Amino acid sequence: MKTIRFFCPATIANLSCGFDVLGLCLDKVGDEMIVHKTSQPGVRITKITGAELPMETENNVAGVAALSLLQQWKTDYGFDIEIHKRIKAGSGIGSSAASAAGAVFGINALLGSPFEAAELVKFAMQGEKLAGGSAHADNVAPALLGGITLIRSYNPLDIIRIESPVELYAAVIHPQIELKTSDSRSVLKQQVPLKSAIMQWGNVGGLVAGLYTSDYDLIGRSLQDHIVEPLRSVLIPGFHEVKNAAISNGALGAGISGAGPSVFALCKGKQSAEIAAAAMGVVLDQMDLPYETHVSAINPNGIKILSQE
Amino acid sequence: MKTIRFFCPATIANLSCGFDVLGLCLDKVGDEMIVHKTSQPGVRITKITGAELPMETENNVAGVAALSLLQQWKTDYGFDIEIHKRIKAGSGIGSSAASAAGAVFGINALLGSPFEAAELVKFAMQGEKLAGGSAHADNVAPALLGGITLIRSYNPLDIIRIESPVELYAAVIHPQIELKTSDSRSVLKQQVPLKSAIMQWGNVGGLVAGLYTSDYDLIGRSLQDHIVEPLRSVLIPGFHEVKNAAISNGALGAGISGAGPSVFALCKGKQSAEIAAAAMGVVLDQMDLPYETHVSAINPNGIKILSQE
Repeated sequence: MKTIRFFCPATIANLSCGFDVLGLCLDKVGDEMIVHKTSQPGVRITKITGAELPMETENNVAGVAALSLLQQWKTDYGFDIEIHKRIKAGSGIGSSAASAAGAVFGINALLGSPFEAAELVKFAMQGEKLAGGSAHADNVAPALLGGITLIRSYNPLDIIRIESPVELYAAVIHPQIELKTSDSRSVLKQQVPLKSAIMQWGNVGGLVAGLYTSDYDLIGRSLQDHIVEPLRSVLIPGFHEVKNAAISNGALGAGISGAGPSVFALCKGKQSAEIAAAAMGVVLDQMDLPYETHVSAINPNGIKILSQE
Repeated sequence: MKTIRFFCPATIANLSCGFDVLGLCLDKVGDEMIVHKTSQPGVRITKITGAELPMETENNVAGVAALSLLQQWKTDYGFDIEIHKRIKAGSGIGSSAASAAGAVFGINALLGSPFEAAELVKFAMQGEKLAGGSAHADNVAPALLGGITLIRSYNPLDIIRIESPVELYAAVIHPQIELKTSDSRSVLKQQVPLKSAIMQWGNVGGLVAGLYTSDYDLIGRSLQDHIVEPLRSVLIPGFHEVKNAAISNGALGAGISGAGPSVFALCKGKQSAEIAAAAMGVVLDQMDLPYETHVSAINPNGIKILSQE
């Protein structure tokens, strides 16, 4: 195999209560990447469409992730990477993660798959570090493993694939405002009240229990964030109205997707997710704020190979 | 029915990562209580054996819990309560919770069961408030509902019964030192580092996932406490040696039971729990510290009726 072309899914990190540990893989929403094996050693970003991103390997999240992998697996040949972005940068649905995860996925496949998906997460995290200043795994893990993932521990890295009910759908609305991950992180406080933290881990436990038992109501009740949402939501115009619109129109729960500005809602069934997406859109229409919406099942497989030769 | 006699189980609260939210019900270790319906209105504590505890209803955890229930369900008759303590006060395995849960369980049964177990938790929490200054539910919930329980939320109270694998056993060692719940709570800090809180909710998610999937190794990896154990363990002589003895002898994980001083270990199978209990005992033997040990399956039913007439 010399060339692999694949779909790199968007992802929703945090899922309200699970800041830095929970993430969910979307279906259909995502980038396309092509990785070619070349006789020339090293990694080159040869083409980027759909976004203005750095072409220099060391300044590109896909490039940095690729280099991180190749530090652990030396080769006398190299790789050319094409990135066709469809996930907008700074949208909060894992744009940088899709590129970082895609780069290590493609190179690993062309190397004959020496690394397992969970190991690839470590390399992809180096791309995330370049993008947001923090080597978080809650987007790259679901992109690589699919489904809903829990980062039980970062040191050592311990990633748990959480079962989720088949009827669970996500609605995402992306207000077309720019919000850098680094800005979203800067509003966080390094100390949090113990009382809020207790509520947060109660909800993480409830969400995981709800996912395993297909208890949609429990999933909804657990989608609460007492730590980060109060700080970050002020950066997102109309956040509370958008969230309330989703919930009052049948969504199980809603919150900030990753670092924002996208807002997600989880719903039982595709139709319910479509209604939630439309209801959230009405709010931004009234504010004259342009937006995109996505409705997606949970993608159980993560990155999907489109062709290889 | 005029009289009910029942077994009130001991419980392990917190389970390392789940401070104030997780609890587990023990089998065999527990008190016995008898509640009689009387023509005289009100609640009286008529007999206490096995411990020196206040006989005045308003100063007794069982009495306070009983009065809390009867505020919501007025009767023109009353109740006499006998408490035969076998769980030592201040042991950290839910001694006050057993009495509080027992009182509301017994009275509810004699009233014809107008309240569900989850509602009884609220009344029993008033007994806990008297005992420890905090109306926590992580002992009374598993005592009343059985199994492993998660308090997803205190306000509103939302209790989730978590499935657990049948081979899961607990070993508990109770060093015979006095440690008041109020003292154990006073060492807590009201602000915690966000980084530690993230680790904590990662572990809560991992523990719940491990319980649903019978993944014993994941259960063990998740039994970590980065928030409370570092502060409370200094109050327990030989804590780290006891914990390490359990784990190095095959326990999945170990930590402080409730507010301590008891230390618990979770194990796969009864034999493993017996070995862990013995190994923990060896440490305290070497320190010349008297102790009691308990080995117990998870009690799936909570309080157990022994006789009624």
